[in-house]
Amino acid sequence: MPDFQAWTTRILKRTEGALEDLLPPASVAPERLHAAMRYAVLGGGKRVRPLLVHAAGEVCGASPDALDAAACAVELIHAYSLVHDDMPCMDDDVLRRGKPTIHIQFDEATALLAGDALQTLAFHSLSRPALLADSAVQAAMIHDLALAAGSRGMAGGQAIDLASVGRQLDRSELEFMHIHKTGALIRCAVMLGARCGAPLDRDEIDRLDRFGKLVGLLFQVVDDILDADGDTATLGKTAGKDAAHDKPTYVSLLGLARSRAYAGELLDEAVGEIAPLPASGRLADLARFVVHRRF
Amino acid sequence: MPDFQAWTTRILKRTEGALEDLLPPASVAPERLHAAMRYAVLGGGKRVRPLLVHAAGEVCGASPDALDAAACAVELIHAYSLVHDDMPCMDDDVLRRGKPTIHIQFDEATALLAGDALQTLAFHSLSRPALLADSAVQAAMIHDLALAAGSRGMAGGQAIDLASVGRQLDRSELEFMHIHKTGALIRCAVMLGARCGAPLDRDEIDRLDRFGKLVGLLFQVVDDILDADGDTATLGKTAGKDAAHDKPTYVSLLGLARSRAYAGELLDEAVGEIAPLPASGRLADLARFVVHRRF
Repeated sequence: MPDFQAWTTRILKRTEGALEDLLPPASVAPERLHAAMRYAVLGGGKRVRPLLVHAAGEVCGASPDALDAAACAVELIHAYSLVHDDMPCMDDDVLRRGKPTIHIQFDEATALLAGDALQTLAFHSLSRPALLADSAVQAAMIHDLALAAGSRGMAGGQAIDLASVGRQLDRSELEFMHIHKTGALIRCAVMLGARCGAPLDRDEIDRLDRFGKLVGLLFQVVDDILDADGDTATLGKTAGKDAAHDKPTYVSLLGLARSRAYAGELLDEAVGEIAPLPASGRLADLARFVVHRRF
Repeated sequence: MPDFQAWTTRILKRTEGALEDLLPPASVAPERLHAAMRYAVLGGGKRVRPLLVHAAGEVCGASPDALDAAACAVELIHAYSLVHDDMPCMDDDVLRRGKPTIHIQFDEATALLAGDALQTLAFHSLSRPALLADSAVQAAMIHDLALAAGSRGMAGGQAIDLASVGRQLDRSELEFMHIHKTGALIRCAVMLGARCGAPLDRDEIDRLDRFGKLVGLLFQVVDDILDADGDTATLGKTAGKDAAHDKPTYVSLLGLARSRAYAGELLDEAVGEIAPLPASGRLADLARFVVHRRF
């Protein structure tokens, strides 16, 4: 997929530029906080959520500028969640994207505040004046992001995850956790991109929503496989930490082979959902990329 | 001021009801997170920011429903900042509003996530569909709140505060810190209320903005006086903790008598700013209430 690779490179570059512009310079007071925010966000990460925003934007012919703002918003929510997730009272991890985590590189208080301010910056990005011609759609997008990120979405998923350590979850409980913890924001990335352009009809929106939900699960299954299978150097984070923390994963529940088969099924279903939509090839490529990124 | 007291009681009651409705029930999963969020927000707090939102709304004849959503948004940002501020890596406090702080009553991870989710819920509240007839104004209000809460506002002020522990600040540095840490959100409360009704002209907006800035400072000066002067029982939080943490305050810089005189000057100036505005009596009463609440 040479075209997909060129597209990915282009979107990653513009996302990096948009994040760079949005994050206050480290020379502006409070300097240490701004340095920590930039350290947490720039120069790393797969940027799967921004890629999903832009790919979904192709379906509705969205303006690239609006997509940048939405892409930054979801990526900043994701980045803040990683900063807080790595803190000693949560996962207590020292390595992320091959670099020391924020509370190691800076200090715990700065990590806490940097995470807080990154979340705020996400809403700052999405509430930019004149983002879209229709401000009511913009307000609805902000509402969607808040729902996806909050206690009934991502933050709630982290709480469920915490409560599950050391417990034996069944498959539906594990799925419930992941639908919140990673699924809600990935699904939201697709829906935000899909709202930045010409209005879609109900069936199109439903298909994209189901696609987002499936890709969210797919992403987690693949993550569990990589965590069980990979090593710290390729992952850029501490490998095998789920098992070490006695956390339930798809691999611990289904085994490696059945987890791989499940990933394949989710991929087929996701791609099938969007097949009838115009200009959905990029989304399908992206779903395949999520699966094949490292195995 | 019997009328002011009746008004305050009425606004506090409706704010409590609006917060109650907005916060997910503790019976909804994740239960522990929702219980912590409710514990952090309900049944306590002076609700100065919601009162400011509603008082500013009187100047522009705003709809009470829109004011409730804005009032909840600023109060939730305030509440989240207290939860995180009390954590061991920040102020490490065990008492707030006369009750154990969240990380004591629950645990540190739950405090972290509850604070995170309360911030998200603030933006959820302010992005409610059809909050105002003009969605562009709504988006602008969300943008204002994000600016006031983020690294160039409240979160930035907390970072400056952290960096100042043990250092001797001069008056302008102290003011710079407070303008961010508490001032930005108080000012934002006034401006959010002022945008929920009929559009105001430039001079009116500027007067309200200066009023908000002055009341923000006033609030901090009074807080420093109470911290130095009060006892733990009346404050509902650990008294004298600023001195114990070697934190710079107006009292440590100016002494108690000059701090009181400064509060008086700020009050006169604030009330003078809004005197020409119609229906601004409530805001003036509220500024007086901030000063006289406990001394």
